[in-house]
Amino acid sequence: MPVKLTAPKASNLLSINGVKLGFAKAHVRKPDRKDILVMTLPENSCVAGVFTQNRFCAAPVILCKTHLAETSGVRALLVNTGCANAGTGEDGLNRAKQTCEALSKLLNIATNQILPFSTGVILEPLPVDKVIAGMPAAIENLTEDNWLNAAEAIMTTDIVAKGTSRQIQLAGKTVTITGISKGSGMIHPNMATMLGYIATDAAISQSALEAIIQYAVNKSFNCITVDGDTSTNDSLIMMATNLAGNAEITETSADFITLRDALTDVAIELAQAIVRDGEGATKFMTVTVESGKDEAECRKVAYAIAHSPLIKTAFFASDPNLGRILAAIGYAGIDDLDVDKLDLYLGDVLVAEKSGRAVSYKEEQGAAIMKESDILVRVVLNRGSENITIWTCDFSYDYVKINADYRS
Amino acid sequence: MPVKLTAPKASNLLSINGVKLGFAKAHVRKPDRKDILVMTLPENSCVAGVFTQNRFCAAPVILCKTHLAETSGVRALLVNTGCANAGTGEDGLNRAKQTCEALSKLLNIATNQILPFSTGVILEPLPVDKVIAGMPAAIENLTEDNWLNAAEAIMTTDIVAKGTSRQIQLAGKTVTITGISKGSGMIHPNMATMLGYIATDAAISQSALEAIIQYAVNKSFNCITVDGDTSTNDSLIMMATNLAGNAEITETSADFITLRDALTDVAIELAQAIVRDGEGATKFMTVTVESGKDEAECRKVAYAIAHSPLIKTAFFASDPNLGRILAAIGYAGIDDLDVDKLDLYLGDVLVAEKSGRAVSYKEEQGAAIMKESDILVRVVLNRGSENITIWTCDFSYDYVKINADYRS
Repeated sequence: MPVKLTAPKASNLLSINGVKLGFAKAHVRKPDRKDILVMTLPENSCVAGVFTQNRFCAAPVILCKTHLAETSGVRALLVNTGCANAGTGEDGLNRAKQTCEALSKLLNIATNQILPFSTGVILEPLPVDKVIAGMPAAIENLTEDNWLNAAEAIMTTDIVAKGTSRQIQLAGKTVTITGISKGSGMIHPNMATMLGYIATDAAISQSALEAIIQYAVNKSFNCITVDGDTSTNDSLIMMATNLAGNAEITETSADFITLRDALTDVAIELAQAIVRDGEGATKFMTVTVESGKDEAECRKVAYAIAHSPLIKTAFFASDPNLGRILAAIGYAGIDDLDVDKLDLYLGDVLVAEKSGRAVSYKEEQGAAIMKESDILVRVVLNRGSENITIWTCDFSYDYVKINADYRS
Repeated sequence: MPVKLTAPKASNLLSINGVKLGFAKAHVRKPDRKDILVMTLPENSCVAGVFTQNRFCAAPVILCKTHLAETSGVRALLVNTGCANAGTGEDGLNRAKQTCEALSKLLNIATNQILPFSTGVILEPLPVDKVIAGMPAAIENLTEDNWLNAAEAIMTTDIVAKGTSRQIQLAGKTVTITGISKGSGMIHPNMATMLGYIATDAAISQSALEAIIQYAVNKSFNCITVDGDTSTNDSLIMMATNLAGNAEITETSADFITLRDALTDVAIELAQAIVRDGEGATKFMTVTVESGKDEAECRKVAYAIAHSPLIKTAFFASDPNLGRILAAIGYAGIDDLDVDKLDLYLGDVLVAEKSGRAVSYKEEQGAAIMKESDILVRVVLNRGSENITIWTCDFSYDYVKINADYRS
């Protein structure tokens, strides 16, 4: 079960002026399941994207990048679940193009004004006919208040739909932000089998939106891991419809930071939701590494902890087997690490110092914290001034079950 | 259950002239279990060691390195299970020293002629009194034919004892090699929670033995992974008693390669045995990456595959979900990888080429191979002439169970 995470109410996901969402049950892989999503944007919207670093990036990712490079006038997004259209070579690219062409005719826009996204099983051909056959129904129900349906339509192994909204004031104008995401396994920075869509009605320049998405992704989706696997299909899209009536935000605007932080806050909540709904997760772990020489070494230590199956299974068992955390710090790859200097905390309890168990530490303290569902692991390296925080979950029987059963 | 691995018969582990082994039940952590091992070597033996790269290396590892640097006259090894004496700081080092001092008095040798080893739970103090109290019984039963008992005495979560022997002829003299190992979880190169002891009666120079152990470890223990966790206590020791009557082997001897390859062969068998007995393992996977630009990039790809929980669970499920392998190759970190050029084989079946499923591939072929217990995953990068082979196992419910229950 997800860790302290429930699906949002439809009424809590605020409409974004100009953004319409429609879904359909296209039977891509399973019957009776919302599995395609169409989003449409008004003219003059700005759109920015960040995509997987995986060399086997999926056909729709290649096409998204091409279309974003070709046009500044993106008008629609198309998402299907059930098939990732990855590891599908030239044929996969053709199939992704066919879906964009079909949708472009139905919406009367250019093919490259459409961004396609797929998530699901890799190495299988996209059933183009099913996706196309589902489009009319999705277009039929395009409305601005369909965000919860949209969040449900992009789920794969997710247990709960993920979405959140914010409102901020920019120079007296109310600006609304709503985002949805999906993802549960194959979650790792740069990035996850994760799809994220964040829309706002704010007026913002293209370059300011691109600066914000880079900032936000580094503080959110690039700080989560479930299993260390980086997907072929990860995509985060930020969209601004420019309909809120605010003065256009640029990188030098007084309100730039306000909007950036609000969008980043939404991105963080959506990213954390993915971990809370991590495959088989029973615990949500925040791993903070402090006072490193640089951010890179902090990340190394944080991910060594967050990826260790031994640590993740110990958290699953609520076993304060903290030596496993020391071991992970030790093999994280900091060659000149002085283990005598670092401090390890579980929650606010000092667990280890001077390369051994802290004199003040009592196992009952660790045991009590390990029973909680939200747990902080804090490593203080005492060798510099950089910090990092990432989020992960534990490793349970259900992780194995979900991933052993996925295709069947 | 271990994958095609059974314990050796006592009669199949050949005595090494001059090497005596004694064990005891010292109740370090659990009652009624062989948990300490004493090995003694004759004068004029050569000993070489390779140890964990973990910055939190355990107290006995620190002491082993110190003693090996101080003396060329190692005469005894002391191993305890049940407690790793790691993450124990200065106090841990003192406790390791106390055990060496106690044994040195009983054996009438110098303290630094003893190499100590510990394996078990991290971050807990070594019960020195129990270890010392067990020593007389271990010394009492020191014999040359105790190799199987010794292999059993060093087991932790291992299901079967691991050991093997070889005999070779060096210029008409019979040379015998026997090795034992332990390890099951926290297994990763550089190295594993693994202890390995390989002894031979060959006459060999110290520098030749050191050259051989480096060669052998890179071909064996540094090519295995169970869960990607590098232990604090890993140690591989090679010992030569110089009693076989052969002319001393040096790096330039005609027989150097013969002896090197025989010792390496033993190391590979012991390393593979650890994977076959990997925690919860049901499948043994050989991952070969061919025709890379250099060995480093071959290793990156091989370990991306071998560490992926998604791939390991798919193997557990006998599910030919081969897209997960492509995804892992894609995120392995080769920035200029041309995915159109690489070929992926499962066993001898071409599965993927030109960044998609091979036209000739049928899912039944993959399904049939996935049902086997020994599976070859072969990636041909087609961009250079370097190759690497590593070994790993799948990821099962039992891995989670074993590691969630370990301390209880």
